[in-house]
Parts: sequence; C-alpha cells; structure tokens
Amino acid sequence: MDADRFARAALSRVAEPCDREVPGLVAELGAVETLERIRAGRGTLARFAARLAVLDTERDLDIAAKVGARVVVPDDDEWPERLGQVPVPPYCLWVRGPLDLAETVERSVAVVGSRTATAYGEQVAADLAAGLCQRGWAVVSGAAFGIDGSAHRGALAVDGATVAVLAGGVERPYPSGHAALLSRIARDGLVVSEVAPGSAPMKSRFLARNRLIAGMTRGTVVVEADLRSGSRNTVKHAIEAGRHVGAVPGPVTSMTSSGCHQEIRDQRAVLVTSAEEVIDLVGDLGDDAHEPGRGPVLPGDDLSPFDAAVLEVVPFRSGLTLDAVVRQVAQAPLTVRAALGRLERLGLVGESAGTWRKRPQRSRLPLG
Amino acid sequence: MDADRFARAALSRVAEPCDREVPGLVAELGAVETLERIRAGRGTLARFAARLAVLDTERDLDIAAKVGARVVVPDDDEWPERLGQVPVPPYCLWVRGPLDLAETVERSVAVVGSRTATAYGEQVAADLAAGLCQRGWAVVSGAAFGIDGSAHRGALAVDGATVAVLAGGVERPYPSGHAALLSRIARDGLVVSEVAPGSAPMKSRFLARNRLIAGMTRGTVVVEADLRSGSRNTVKHAIEAGRHVGAVPGPVTSMTSSGCHQEIRDQRAVLVTSAEEVIDLVGDLGDDAHEPGRGPVLPGDDLSPFDAAVLEVVPFRSGLTLDAVVRQVAQAPLTVRAALGRLERLGLVGESAGTWRKRPQRSRLPLG
Repeated sequence: MDADRFARAALSRVAEPCDREVPGLVAELGAVETLERIRAGRGTLARFAARLAVLDTERDLDIAAKVGARVVVPDDDEWPERLGQVPVPPYCLWVRGPLDLAETVERSVAVVGSRTATAYGEQVAADLAAGLCQRGWAVVSGAAFGIDGSAHRGALAVDGATVAVLAGGVERPYPSGHAALLSRIARDGLVVSEVAPGSAPMKSRFLARNRLIAGMTRGTVVVEADLRSGSRNTVKHAIEAGRHVGAVPGPVTSMTSSGCHQEIRDQRAVLVTSAEEVIDLVGDLGDDAHEPGRGPVLPGDDLSPFDAAVLEVVPFRSGLTLDAVVRQVAQAPLTVRAALGRLERLGLVGESAGTWRKRPQRSRLPLG
Repeated sequence: MDADRFARAALSRVAEPCDREVPGLVAELGAVETLERIRAGRGTLARFAARLAVLDTERDLDIAAKVGARVVVPDDDEWPERLGQVPVPPYCLWVRGPLDLAETVERSVAVVGSRTATAYGEQVAADLAAGLCQRGWAVVSGAAFGIDGSAHRGALAVDGATVAVLAGGVERPYPSGHAALLSRIARDGLVVSEVAPGSAPMKSRFLARNRLIAGMTRGTVVVEADLRSGSRNTVKHAIEAGRHVGAVPGPVTSMTSSGCHQEIRDQRAVLVTSAEEVIDLVGDLGDDAHEPGRGPVLPGDDLSPFDAAVLEVVPFRSGLTLDAVVRQVAQAPLTVRAALGRLERLGLVGESAGTWRKRPQRSRLPLG
C-alpha cells in the first residue's frame, strides 16, 4: 500500500472528520507529513496522544479486508470529483461493494428524511428511489430507520444502484436492525464511511457524515422531516455545497412533513412530487431536461435577465462565495444557486473551494 | 330607488357579467345611459332584444325583497373598494345577510378548492377557515361541495364572518344540497351574486364569479385542487388582480393536491400550512405582521435591493401593468407582486385600473 493511502487510513482513525486543524494540514502538507506531525505531537497536536497509543492501522486494514472494504483516496479514479467542492473533504473513504464509487455518484441523488417516518413517507421514499433508479440515477442515503431505509429498499427493489454512507465503521451495521439491509447494500451497491473500521457512530460523526451525503450527490431530496429532523442538517450541507435541494410535501396535519414545508416556504428547497420532478431539478441541461436543443449558439446568448445579472456579479479572478453572490443580487439563495447551476452547465462559471468565478469563453460551442 | 341602482339591477339581468361591450359602456357613460342604449338596440346592442323582451326588473327586485336581498352599487358605502381593481367590475351586487359587505371583505381571505375534496382537504379547509375567523378575518368562498362548503362551515362553527359568492341568483340555493348551509350563511353572514334573481348558474357565470371571489378578498388560498380544478381559475384571477395566493400542500399520492403543488412549483402560490401563515401572507404590514415597528423613517429608506429595483421601474405618470413590471424586472410574477404589495403598504406606489404608479412623497411619515 502506498504511503499516502496508508497515512490517510491512519488519519481517518486518529482525527475526527471535521477536526479544526487536521484537514487544513492535509491540504497544505499532504497526509504523510500531517501524520508525521501528529506523531511528533508538538503544540496543539499533542492532543492526539491517547488515540496514537491505540492506533493500529494494519489491524484496521485487516478488518476492512475481511468485510471486503477498500480505502479510496483523492488520487484514485474512484474518488468522487464532487467531493472537491465539500468545504472539509474526508481524509479517505472506506468503501464496501461491487460498484465504482465515482461512476455511481456522478448521477446520484440523496434521498433522506426522518427516522420516525409515516407509512406515507416510507412509501413515497421507496417510490421516489425506485423511479430515480429506473431512470439511471443512483440513490444515496444514510441507512437510518424510516425514510433512509425505505429509499435504499426502493432502489434495491428495482435492482438500482444505492449507496449507504455510515457515521461509524463500514464493518459495523448501524442501526443493527438494518444489518440485513446493509449486507444487501454491500453486496449489490456500496457502503461507505470516512471513519476507519472500529470507529463508533457518534453524534458529531452523523453531522459530518451528512455533508458527504449532500456533497457526493447532484442534489438532496427530503421526503419527511419534522422541524428538528437531522435531515435538515443534510439540507444545510447541500445548500452550502451549492447542490440542488428538493422537498416532498405532505399533509399539513403531519408534523413529520413540517420541516419539508418550512424548507419550501423559506425557498431553501423546491417542492417535488415525483422522480421526474427530482430529475428536472438536478439533471444536466443537455442530457436530462425536457427542452430540446436548438443548435449552436454562443453560451450566454439567450440568458434570462436574472441569469445575466448573476453572471455579471461573478468575477473572473477572485472568486465569490454563494453568500456573497446572494448579497450582491439580493435574491433568495435557492434562486441564485439555481442560476449559478445553469451558468455552470453552460460553462460560463465554475466553482472551486466554495467560490465562484467566471470562465473564459473562447469560441462558439454547440449546446443542447 | 334611484335611477343608477335600478339601471344596474336591470343590467345585471340583461347583460352577462363579463360581456365584451357593456362593462365598457357603463364605465364610459354610466349605467342609466348604457341601459337606454341597450333598449334602443342599435348596432351590436340589438343582440339583447330577446332578453329585453322578458326583462322585468320590478319583479326581480320583488323576489330579492322576499329573500331579504339588497342591491349594492359602486356609490354605496357598502361597495367593496377592492372591486375597483378587478379588470371587469360587476354592474351591481345582490346581497343577502346582516353584515356590511365592504367592512366584511376589508379583512377577508378566499378559501377555495376542489368539489371532489378528500376528508383531509375538508378538515384542513374547515380548520383554516375557523382559524382565520378567530383572528378577525372573514372567509369568502363559492358554496360548492367539497372545500368551499367546508370553509363556510368552519367559519360558521366559530361564529365567524363568511361570504358565499354565487354564480346564479341569490334566491336560489346552488348546489341545492347546500340549501341549509346557504340559509345559515344568509342569516349569519352574506350571500352575494352579481347576477339578478332568476338567473341560472351557468359555466361562464362560475368563471366570472371566481374573479369576484379573488377580487373582493385580500388573498386566495387553495386547499385542494387537481390539475384541472376550477379553483385554479380563481388563482388566475387573484394573480391578475394582484392578490396574494397561498396553496395548501397534501400527500403527493393524492391527485386532489396536485394542482396546489403545481401552483407552488410554478411560484404562483406560496405554500401555507396554517391560518397564521395565511395571515402572514395577506396581512397588513402594520397590523398583522410579526415584526415590531421601528419608529419614524422615510418610506423607502430601507427597502431591499429588489424592492428598490421594482420601485425604480414603476413610473410616476403613465402606469404600468403588473405584466409590464414583471417583464422589466425579469422576476416571477409572484415575487414582483409581493414587492409591489410591500411598496403599496409603504405608500410608495399605488394601483388603479390595473396599472401601477409611483406616489409622490411629501414628508417623513411614521411607520409601523
């Protein structure tokens, strides 16, 4: 195993996913040098002493090998490109299952929601997941009871691709009541975690895990969520990562739909009622939208006045965060994000490290 | 009875509510002169000969008197001021019931929806209507089976003010299955029609009636509507009249909520789940909104950039239609209308005859 991969595997056991210091060091110095500094334990890095004492990466890799898990790192073809846009990327990913992670999530949607779902919500989640899979999209979720489990099951029921992202190690089924479901996902889809085997699921790791679900996918759909549901945290991450967000409505008498309704009212999510509408929301302009192409035009030739206004405020050199663009055009974040998405698909703007820039235009390109 | 009132009562029997010619003549020449011209029957006005032959306004007034109905005309205090903003105002209104129409609809909301409602929709309509009444708002609807009837009943159940606007004469209960409900509304609320006693409810009159429901009220809420529901026609009128529109979501598995979901997706309606949210949507800034006032400021001092942009395109002299403003600022009609509403409440713009103008600002005014 190469040194970078080994170091990242070790880091995923020693440091928490969103540690305040380590991800920055990795970005700056690389994983090998970062692990050496942690081992040296000077200054603030002394805090890892207790974890270093029990670190046994060979053992973690053995456990992984026993359950057929591999370690995927940023240099791998299997590393999802979209993770480059997540504010704090994972050190590595522990991956179980026969699919290629990068290919699978390239056209994927997160379907998430409440653990205390209703029969209505579970049915909608399963139907939505099945519909997405039947149209060639993968379904990513968190394997929790309720909506998550229904989404995975709906995908499996039509032999679709589904990815479960766990908050603990990939070798331990969590929740244990979903052991059989997770075995099936590991056999036919993918089970993924950013923490090493042996790591327990903890609250902070669930919150960190949600940023991966939101960040790896083209968009996130919340099926049922009460006002305090953890899936609203996934929505927050999706918005921060510039992803599309949909929410499924339900009876106003059902508290498990109240979070969805609030996201729609706040214009943080678009109301969606079917797999087709989800694909309309997250799909590529060329591949997925209903409108037929119209032959070669200069990208930006027929932008709407609003998209043109958004394009105008995005600079060429120093990038702007989504927040900054929102402030400049004084529109709802959802509206602005949608416009940036359209402009990005036209190749007019690009996003990296959380900031948006204009892309130089050279020549007339065929569209549609 | 004065000549204008008598002429308008006659016109409401002779000419259809949205006749292509008569409303324009009334606006230009007055009701008395218009009726004389119709009686003379020259040119295109010859088409009223058959109706004139059976016209008996004294008899219509007798029928009205028997059911306790009065004829309300634009010069009356009881004439709802808001009808001045309806593209084609009624000739007169036939009104049964103990309430003052103008006072009642000043703070009113239309609650409408499908005739083939579900138990869920009927429950939500009744609860919403009751909640609005308990907060001092009147509920206007069309007395149809399903959502309309539930809205009226919900209002009556809490001794609230409710107004039924009929497509036929006020003396004939329609639908006949709602005879008892309409008697109760006539006793405690108001039953209103723009067509004279003896006029049958016809399809075109339902469509015309919907513009009154939308136009008399501060806003319209659709509780349940399938994609082809007539209540979506009321939404169209509400949007044209510049009113607020709300829609109640429901299960995505229910076709009777599909029209509501579509209006929300198209940004023609705001998702609402409770009476409080409806009042937030339609309420006066000063009286009803949650934000406390902040002392004297110059109106417009702290407009949002978007509201400021809308204000900028509205001219002082020649007015602009909502459509024209929408085109100029290139935003969704709903967004633009909301901005115009905020500017109107600040006294910065005014609307008359369907066009918007800036209002001259003279001095610092206390707000909030």
